[in-house]
Amino acid sequence: MSFMLNEIHEQPDVIGKMVEAESAKVAALAAEIKARGIEYVVVAARGTSDHAGIYGKYLLESKNALPVGLAASSVYTLYSGKMKMDRALVIGISQSGQATDVAEYMQRSKESGALTAAITNVAGSTLTQVADHSILCNAGPEKGVAATKTYTSTLAALYLLSATLAGEANVKDKLLECAEAMRSALKIEDFCKAKAERYRFMQSGYVLSRGYNYCTALEAGLKLMETNYVGMRAYSSADFQHGPIAAVQGQPCFLFSAPGKAMQNMLDMAAKLKEHNAEVAVISSEEQALASGDVQFKLDAKIDEELSPMVYIMPAQMLAYYMAVTRGLDPDNPRGLSKVTLTR
Amino acid sequence: MSFMLNEIHEQPDVIGKMVEAESAKVAALAAEIKARGIEYVVVAARGTSDHAGIYGKYLLESKNALPVGLAASSVYTLYSGKMKMDRALVIGISQSGQATDVAEYMQRSKESGALTAAITNVAGSTLTQVADHSILCNAGPEKGVAATKTYTSTLAALYLLSATLAGEANVKDKLLECAEAMRSALKIEDFCKAKAERYRFMQSGYVLSRGYNYCTALEAGLKLMETNYVGMRAYSSADFQHGPIAAVQGQPCFLFSAPGKAMQNMLDMAAKLKEHNAEVAVISSEEQALASGDVQFKLDAKIDEELSPMVYIMPAQMLAYYMAVTRGLDPDNPRGLSKVTLTR
Repeated sequence: MSFMLNEIHEQPDVIGKMVEAESAKVAALAAEIKARGIEYVVVAARGTSDHAGIYGKYLLESKNALPVGLAASSVYTLYSGKMKMDRALVIGISQSGQATDVAEYMQRSKESGALTAAITNVAGSTLTQVADHSILCNAGPEKGVAATKTYTSTLAALYLLSATLAGEANVKDKLLECAEAMRSALKIEDFCKAKAERYRFMQSGYVLSRGYNYCTALEAGLKLMETNYVGMRAYSSADFQHGPIAAVQGQPCFLFSAPGKAMQNMLDMAAKLKEHNAEVAVISSEEQALASGDVQFKLDAKIDEELSPMVYIMPAQMLAYYMAVTRGLDPDNPRGLSKVTLTR
Repeated sequence: MSFMLNEIHEQPDVIGKMVEAESAKVAALAAEIKARGIEYVVVAARGTSDHAGIYGKYLLESKNALPVGLAASSVYTLYSGKMKMDRALVIGISQSGQATDVAEYMQRSKESGALTAAITNVAGSTLTQVADHSILCNAGPEKGVAATKTYTSTLAALYLLSATLAGEANVKDKLLECAEAMRSALKIEDFCKAKAERYRFMQSGYVLSRGYNYCTALEAGLKLMETNYVGMRAYSSADFQHGPIAAVQGQPCFLFSAPGKAMQNMLDMAAKLKEHNAEVAVISSEEQALASGDVQFKLDAKIDEELSPMVYIMPAQMLAYYMAVTRGLDPDNPRGLSKVTLTR
């Protein structure tokens, strides 16, 4: 079995391990956030980790009243900016813990007064040495170049932080239910394998969602790009209407339509895409949403919208894997990429 | 003459008008930012306005020590979030001033304690009614659906705010020098017109930059998409190496390589793209940068990196216009777009 496929399958178990091992550390971080009177959050991350950060933004803003920004690391690394960050929490995310720009952003933020927390899969890595607090993915070694289990584990860590900070009950149970829903999402594997043929010669396409699953659109687009060298463009469905929709005719569009407050937006988007003669593939557990698509990725699992990004990314991971296999590519070793990317 | 081409040509004059008309209002806003002890900024905007907001982020973080986040409006409009924003400045940007989600974000932020400022081209629009402070683009009516002069005028307004807040001398002179550089950039029009033929059958491609000109990459990509229905993907060159570079073989890549602190990054990027067998077009005033490209868009104007996004977007606007003409398309009325986009 390939590393990537194996790691996709490990995801539900990893969530359980992460919750067990990290809850106490997350509680300590939540306590310090309160004690320090933190008023806003900055997430420093790149690529897949950045997508996890965007999930964190929706959580912390909606549930914890904390505005969240995404770091432009070049403000420190190129332009020698000096920000005042006494009331900021800076969360650095990197599966390897080696991202040099993220580590430098954390270091400089700390010097500017910020509270810092790392989310990484590697204990003792640069990021954990710089940060005041560290939360580990507990995912075991990730050998596929395309990150899968470290992504969902990072989402779970951010959920754990947000729910703990909000003082919610049964946080652990909710994440274990989510892990069950992820297990049930694996049942769609044969469908993804068969459907990979439809996209054998797809060269480009769009991935759309909104709200909590905006991160899912971004991450699904990246998985397809990394493993299949196709040109995917991912958008929030709201931004998509401000220009990019002009180019959509005849193109494949993947819509993540989880039940919840963003679903009506996705139904409207599907209708608009049909007017523009695009082909719509819908990933959803809901019949109404699935009916709006030409291709239906039907998930059995019912899951809270807040938690759904951990479940909804899985069909995209599996499709990316099987598309690569169908094309005779090696999903474990994408051309021109390495597991650790160093940028300044 | 088409609206779009006419409006591209008006840009240098608009900057002069904006500075003349808005400097006092900007000074009043800067004074209130100081008096209120504002500690961070949130920008609410979509599409082209969002790209202007990203320029604002680099300015306010590098020059004013103010961390800047970009608003996820659905936190308010879908998820009924309640954020604590006593120390926040929220800047809403919309050329029409009618963007419903931006106006709602401003209204809700104000109720949460934020100081609010609008940047728009339309006096008396919804946004100006909601905001505590309003800065106008002074661009006159913009009739082309693809925004050009309101974009550069918004950049100038953000520069004016940042430089005023930093207490810099000669702010007005710097913007007028920038307007002169923009005038000189118009000299590249014939080159763009001729070079449009090379891209007659381009279906997709990449637009890359870093730092202050990251917004230029995003906005250039959007201009090409809106007017030519091509699938462009815009990235910061740092993010691009975290995955998307895998798909770049044989693709056209446009690199904005203004002199300054991000230029070495762009030189490295050009070398890496050649290794990946991509075609590189460089937009620059610098011989060293131009030499790294297969196609050279040479700008005469020398301009500070901080101000360069107003100048460097112009070749992309002109190329988008002439590419559309070469393809027999109407750049003033892109298929499926309207001048005012309402999303919630």
